[in-house]
Amino acid sequence: MFRTIEWLDDNTVRFVDQTKLPLVTEHITTSSYERIAEAIRIMEVRGAPAIGAAAGMGMALAALENEAHAKNQLVEFLEQAAITLNTRPTAVNLTWATKRMLDVAKETEGNADQVTQRLIEEAKEIAEEDVRMCRAIGENALSLIKPGFAIQTICNAGSLATVHLGTVGAVIRIAHQEYGGSIKVYAAETRPRQQGARLTVFEFMADNIDTTLITDGMIGTVFKEGRVDCCVVGSDRIFRTGHITNKIGTYTMAIAARYHNIPFYAAAPISTIDWETNPKDVVIEERNPDEIRMINGEYITVPDAKVYNPAFDTTPPELITAIITDRGIVEHPNEEKMLKLKDQ
Amino acid sequence: MFRTIEWLDDNTVRFVDQTKLPLVTEHITTSSYERIAEAIRIMEVRGAPAIGAAAGMGMALAALENEAHAKNQLVEFLEQAAITLNTRPTAVNLTWATKRMLDVAKETEGNADQVTQRLIEEAKEIAEEDVRMCRAIGENALSLIKPGFAIQTICNAGSLATVHLGTVGAVIRIAHQEYGGSIKVYAAETRPRQQGARLTVFEFMADNIDTTLITDGMIGTVFKEGRVDCCVVGSDRIFRTGHITNKIGTYTMAIAARYHNIPFYAAAPISTIDWETNPKDVVIEERNPDEIRMINGEYITVPDAKVYNPAFDTTPPELITAIITDRGIVEHPNEEKMLKLKDQ
Repeated sequence: MFRTIEWLDDNTVRFVDQTKLPLVTEHITTSSYERIAEAIRIMEVRGAPAIGAAAGMGMALAALENEAHAKNQLVEFLEQAAITLNTRPTAVNLTWATKRMLDVAKETEGNADQVTQRLIEEAKEIAEEDVRMCRAIGENALSLIKPGFAIQTICNAGSLATVHLGTVGAVIRIAHQEYGGSIKVYAAETRPRQQGARLTVFEFMADNIDTTLITDGMIGTVFKEGRVDCCVVGSDRIFRTGHITNKIGTYTMAIAARYHNIPFYAAAPISTIDWETNPKDVVIEERNPDEIRMINGEYITVPDAKVYNPAFDTTPPELITAIITDRGIVEHPNEEKMLKLKDQ
Repeated sequence: MFRTIEWLDDNTVRFVDQTKLPLVTEHITTSSYERIAEAIRIMEVRGAPAIGAAAGMGMALAALENEAHAKNQLVEFLEQAAITLNTRPTAVNLTWATKRMLDVAKETEGNADQVTQRLIEEAKEIAEEDVRMCRAIGENALSLIKPGFAIQTICNAGSLATVHLGTVGAVIRIAHQEYGGSIKVYAAETRPRQQGARLTVFEFMADNIDTTLITDGMIGTVFKEGRVDCCVVGSDRIFRTGHITNKIGTYTMAIAARYHNIPFYAAAPISTIDWETNPKDVVIEERNPDEIRMINGEYITVPDAKVYNPAFDTTPPELITAIITDRGIVEHPNEEKMLKLKDQ
């Protein structure tokens, strides 16, 4: 698999347009941080870790676009850029990455040019950390995934959701490699945007992993028929209470997994954990009703049908068998265990 | 709402092509029983009770197409027609209706013409019984549905699934009428064929009932947020054990309803009950993988993606709060209670 997003030597950013996959593989190269903000907003770049890397690179592009020489003017410019880049309310990686870049800008001595060079290095480092984090998640998961496992997933937390390899993608790819190519995947379509059908199937097929596509409503049946050994899902945000917020459909899957005693794992880098917020206070993004009313630009219902379209749902810790992070595994998560992970 | 299927005075059958709804309302009129078989196979006519009515009318059309004068030759012709009409393995109404028409043919005295006239009356009577049955289901349900209820449903068991009014459709319409227009509906899209989005939204909006479309994966969230008061689903087949077979996604919904203590009701005419078969012996129809791979003729995944596409699932009685029939309600169904209903 190619890298989802990367910093090129000519100080531009290259990313794959995920709205066009799987039928067309098209890369976009830009030197504009506003184009990066747009890419995040219209989900050409998606997946919490990839959004974090994109936001970091967006901040570095903004620094290059800044024309003032004085550092404090650069910082002011970057503060505005950070607001522009924060286009999606639920993705904690967005605020995390822009804040990290801002902190580096503030802490670095020197003029705007010198700080900008430092920010470029930091953006690349965010991307490299992401690759290392994914690998660590996959390696940690080996104690839970056995040879021959069939793994149910939802949405795309594969390579395309990160810079490379993926979170759930690393769990699957590293086990597949370790266990002689014996891992199978069940991918839930994930309406409304169908990232399971469009992205997950594409990327695991590209790596020759036996992948079966199902619709979201088939999950209970797949579980009842004993077709899968565990679920592994990504997370857009994890809370210190052990709750996870992830793509809509995750919560329904977790309920069905519990009913069938199928282990339910959430995989995400530690940077996805929001140590501050109470899960009850999270605003779940409601997206455009036409995401449900239309597919490929054609109506599949009455054009003015009333629609409810929450983009995410929150799964409580009592439905989660373990949270798999790059720093280790938290089984049967609760606040005490999560805080222990924080202090490790 | 117009009638989904009806016998016209010139001895032709008129039905609405449900594959074209909701954007185009197109009726097809035919004198060919093979065209009726085709309509059932490609789901221009769908929904268990409508399929039963279509099969009855198909048998009457076959009788009109028969050229032999002797009754025994007519019966032989009809036996072949019954095989042709049985194009879908899971719908018990298909075999029920063709058998009923064959029995009438065998029992009726006279020549082929006389038997044919009798069969036309019988086909019309099957349709009228369906309308009466739906009304009875809706009236019986009034003890369970309270004013102001929001009702979650899946697929389409509305007017379009029957000759008129619907099974779930009758529950909703009669309560809506009885309770001063205060009933609300949540319709699950029902991938792969999206009958919820295409048909259920269309027909309840047509009757000015407040209807909200959601995707199948949103069900758990809708339940958790307290948006619905109960689920009412149709049934393609009900067993004497209290199991129900219905559109894929029903079982997952039932699990989520139980987790949230939301009453889960199945509504169907008594003719849907298969008194013989063990639910374990039912062959669940696996449909064309392109139903999942494509929407409106366009791929939404890799064109040769591996797919699992069971058309139905089976929900066990422990997840069903009550089965609502035209003959009465069976709460917390089991074999003993079901057999009592049979003998009523």
